[in-house]
Amino acid sequence: MTKPVRFEGVFPILATPFHEDESLDLPSLTRLVRFMADLGVDGVTVLGVLGESNRMIDAEREQVIKTAIAAAGDCPVIVGTSHSGTLAAIKLSQMAQALGASAVMVSPQQEPIPNEQRVFEYYQRIATEVALPLVVQDHPPSSQVHMSVGLLLRLIQDIPSIACVKAEAAPTLGKISALIEGMKLRRVPLLTALGALYGGFELERGASGFNTGFAFPEILARMVQLARAGQIDQAHQLYQRLLPLIVFEQQPGTAIRKELLRLRGLITSNRVRHPGASIDNATSNQLRALLQRVLPGADISKPVAI
Amino acid sequence: MTKPVRFEGVFPILATPFHEDESLDLPSLTRLVRFMADLGVDGVTVLGVLGESNRMIDAEREQVIKTAIAAAGDCPVIVGTSHSGTLAAIKLSQMAQALGASAVMVSPQQEPIPNEQRVFEYYQRIATEVALPLVVQDHPPSSQVHMSVGLLLRLIQDIPSIACVKAEAAPTLGKISALIEGMKLRRVPLLTALGALYGGFELERGASGFNTGFAFPEILARMVQLARAGQIDQAHQLYQRLLPLIVFEQQPGTAIRKELLRLRGLITSNRVRHPGASIDNATSNQLRALLQRVLPGADISKPVAI
Amino acid sequence: MTKPVRFEGVFPILATPFHEDESLDLPSLTRLVRFMADLGVDGVTVLGVLGESNRMIDAEREQVIKTAIAAAGDCPVIVGTSHSGTLAAIKLSQMAQALGASAVMVSPQQEPIPNEQRVFEYYQRIATEVALPLVVQDHPPSSQVHMSVGLLLRLIQDIPSIACVKAEAAPTLGKISALIEGMKLRRVPLLTALGALYGGFELERGASGFNTGFAFPEILARMVQLARAGQIDQAHQLYQRLLPLIVFEQQPGTAIRKELLRLRGLITSNRVRHPGASIDNATSNQLRALLQRVLPGADISKPVAI
Amino acid sequence: MTKPVRFEGVFPILATPFHEDESLDLPSLTRLVRFMADLGVDGVTVLGVLGESNRMIDAEREQVIKTAIAAAGDCPVIVGTSHSGTLAAIKLSQMAQALGASAVMVSPQQEPIPNEQRVFEYYQRIATEVALPLVVQDHPPSSQVHMSVGLLLRLIQDIPSIACVKAEAAPTLGKISALIEGMKLRRVPLLTALGALYGGFELERGASGFNTGFAFPEILARMVQLARAGQIDQAHQLYQRLLPLIVFEQQPGTAIRKELLRLRGLITSNRVRHPGASIDNATSNQLRALLQRVLPGADISKPVAI
Repeated sequence: MTKPVRFEGVFPILATPFHEDESLDLPSLTRLVRFMADLGVDGVTVLGVLGESNRMIDAEREQVIKTAIAAAGDCPVIVGTSHSGTLAAIKLSQMAQALGASAVMVSPQQEPIPNEQRVFEYYQRIATEVALPLVVQDHPPSSQVHMSVGLLLRLIQDIPSIACVKAEAAPTLGKISALIEGMKLRRVPLLTALGALYGGFELERGASGFNTGFAFPEILARMVQLARAGQIDQAHQLYQRLLPLIVFEQQPGTAIRKELLRLRGLITSNRVRHPGASIDNATSNQLRALLQRVLPGADISKPVAI
Repeated sequence: MTKPVRFEGVFPILATPFHEDESLDLPSLTRLVRFMADLGVDGVTVLGVLGESNRMIDAEREQVIKTAIAAAGDCPVIVGTSHSGTLAAIKLSQMAQALGASAVMVSPQQEPIPNEQRVFEYYQRIATEVALPLVVQDHPPSSQVHMSVGLLLRLIQDIPSIACVKAEAAPTLGKISALIEGMKLRRVPLLTALGALYGGFELERGASGFNTGFAFPEILARMVQLARAGQIDQAHQLYQRLLPLIVFEQQPGTAIRKELLRLRGLITSNRVRHPGASIDNATSNQLRALLQRVLPGADISKPVAI
Repeated sequence: MTKPVRFEGVFPILATPFHEDESLDLPSLTRLVRFMADLGVDGVTVLGVLGESNRMIDAEREQVIKTAIAAAGDCPVIVGTSHSGTLAAIKLSQMAQALGASAVMVSPQQEPIPNEQRVFEYYQRIATEVALPLVVQDHPPSSQVHMSVGLLLRLIQDIPSIACVKAEAAPTLGKISALIEGMKLRRVPLLTALGALYGGFELERGASGFNTGFAFPEILARMVQLARAGQIDQAHQLYQRLLPLIVFEQQPGTAIRKELLRLRGLITSNRVRHPGASIDNATSNQLRALLQRVLPGADISKPVAI
Repeated sequence: MTKPVRFEGVFPILATPFHEDESLDLPSLTRLVRFMADLGVDGVTVLGVLGESNRMIDAEREQVIKTAIAAAGDCPVIVGTSHSGTLAAIKLSQMAQALGASAVMVSPQQEPIPNEQRVFEYYQRIATEVALPLVVQDHPPSSQVHMSVGLLLRLIQDIPSIACVKAEAAPTLGKISALIEGMKLRRVPLLTALGALYGGFELERGASGFNTGFAFPEILARMVQLARAGQIDQAHQLYQRLLPLIVFEQQPGTAIRKELLRLRGLITSNRVRHPGASIDNATSNQLRALLQRVLPGADISKPVAI
């Protein structure tokens, strides 16, 4: 029932669309998922940080998962199921599993006294109780947890259902190299994120693709394709061409990304749930001018070919 | 349907009892609530920090609320409904309201950039959408949010449904005095917490009682009674007598408190949910020796009279 | 004796050069300062975050200030004098003043309980005791202090010796606009930083220049020149051309910047003081390949004209 | 020249006395040191957290060290020499050594990405360059660093000049037991702190004494004496008798402690350096009433015998 997933290529992190009154906009979610699936991405991730999962109750999470999976067709759906309690993370993961998710993405949870053994146990227990592949998300700005290279290698080696690391602990380059060098007995792909900020350099280091919310995954897919073909200079040219947009978009917060998705016609409202902030006029104007410079004349409501 | 509550006196924060496998132990919860109600406390609070609410899914929260309210009889039940999203906090509060809670207790939520205006809006929106009285919890160690005296006074003045401040931002004494002095147009009672660590001094400063998880609320009730009667020296003697136990119990974590409740016969297991830690043997032994020193010969399975 | 400084244009933040054994390399510092002064920058800043000032004792700070001022000729030298004690910050600032600095740059200091009134007093006391212009540095990643727009406006309005705000609290764009709009009675220039990461966009928002450690200030100067001349599209083209290098260089840590300065022939060793880390081979190789892509064929030991 | 020190017993952490204008009050420091030495304490520590060392420039630190050593006579003086740079910590330690200190106390330093190997190297380098015994201070509230039991055991085993651990990472009890159990090849004494808050319990766990700023070290010395003699019940009675004062005094900040030292006649002013806060009237009054309850009729300007 669950579609198998291979963690190479491009896996957009999806925003959760809301109406102006902050309620779930499921038709927009369907549109967003369909657009991504039609692009031929390798999977989509719902309920990540960009998906504002930390601002939803469980019943809403369930609706998001159901809607995304119904819309995704053959495209695998990965579900963020992090929780500050281990058993609760298991229960959320089991819900995702029951609803047909292809994998779950899990961040470690901050405790008053950092303890890598507890983080190991957290993943181990989830792996024991959940049949799906696990994506380990390493993103200290949202988790407040710094996982050492040693811990990550131990997780990869000892927990067979860990299928991927989302490597987004800056500085990412050295950590990606250390992980690739350190995976001796068992290897998993590393996906990069942070809005593709260091994407060109991370592909050089051996990353297998992107798992991020950048609003033009079709261009990231082209970068991955070029890198796989050994055309690293062309990949870098593409990276450089996009970089002003990447830099602008990855500013803290989700407002700019939601506005980009709105400008692409994929979601109806750019509303961010309180206490987050939606985009202001000056930023919106600056974004539009930037789009004209980076993608002049493009019809961004359609897949962009560059 | 909702029992009215007056925020003076003693309001125990209840642990959530779990079985050894970490699943909810609702019969123990019923026993715990009944014991407190029979003591004549002024209310009980479920799903606070001590209640490990951050380690539960919403369906479990619902069970806890239902069970506590069913057991409480005439004793008001206050429900912790903090959430990192404003709308989600509203939804959790509305669930509590529908289930018969007498009030909700809400902490502010940490954002990447602290912003007191957003915290104000958070409470304001909850107050608009929820009919219950609000307890504002001011506990930076768990919320990571420092609310200024100015913000708290503005909340009290502008939001009529705020009925109480749980004042547990150390150092508490100056903040309690500043709040009491600053409440000009509208006054609300201040309850103290932190396991009663500064309880004797906080009553001197004008606190109206306790809203904390200390396992002997009957003794805190006696302290409040003495303080109200102006017998501050006797209140202090009681405080001093208990202080070694108070100090021991308020060490970080919930393990010691759950063990005390178990020793009192109120809950069956002292299990703390992972990644939290349950009590170890050495600490358990030290706790028992301490009980013998502080309450020699007492049958702690019954209300303790000292 | 003190050279006057006008906070518009480009003010490189200087690394502090060390020998391989981590001792001060003052001849390299002289070379570095001379290079910048000969470029015609508007001033140089020593003992900032990039200058590893937090890893030096006071006697070393004194040597750095003396050496920089002796080398700078007509170029103003700004000195970082932040300290966790107000009186100590005053004493460090007075030392800088006595040695001939043109201004001091001061960050707010983290206290256990954030308190904007204390931050205000901190700057006010420094301004009272120090005759030099003050640069207020707003960089939460190093200071751990979030200064609200309201606080910054109050500082600007009430403390006449504040001459500039170094605006590097991400997201910077909205804050820059809010400050420019909010300065009613007294205006000061805003300089941007963060390695010029958002430089193109910040100039659009009204920033007056750069106060950052990016290793090619001559190109930033050209960007400022274009922006001032209203040639915003050309400024953006330059920004985009540089952006892969800007992104790579601003990764956390000072190792990459020191290596770039070494590659430019400005400092002898790329050593970073422990517990900081010097650059590793893989990153060094990646940096060199990047330089070839961004500045093909350039002799970077000389000012780069693009 | 350096007096040898054995880390068992009581080692008061000394406040640094200031005049009302915040300048160093060296005569008060002399008085304070003499009082402690005359009590027969086992050593005194200057320039710790309570000593406000983070608010002083290096020249002031030098004056404090010189004055304390001159006044101490045969009493060993331990000097806090933590610094965010390893080489700077070495230089401060060498200064202490040259001035006649008996040991140095060093905290680990926070880095953007926690790294226990770097912390290990930090201590190792200091030990290599400094001939004095090292006290490893484990106090996360001031250092922001959580050292694992594994790291502490490795430090103790591999660095022979580590002579003591100041164990003040709450919850302390389990950590003290884990350290005592874990020290296989080499054992060092553990001193407790946190204002003696958990003192009675920590002695039970095997702590060798106190290294804290509680203003009545003569009573702590008596507790240690009783514990050593196996009279643990008497030690606990003393602890309980003092506990209201201990609890009151260890509230965050140094204001209360300085006021107690002033009330004891040991320092002239209770001034705390900005941005720290000096004591307010209400707290001062509450403190005096408390002293009357805990030490009724005592002349606290003299050693207190209870």
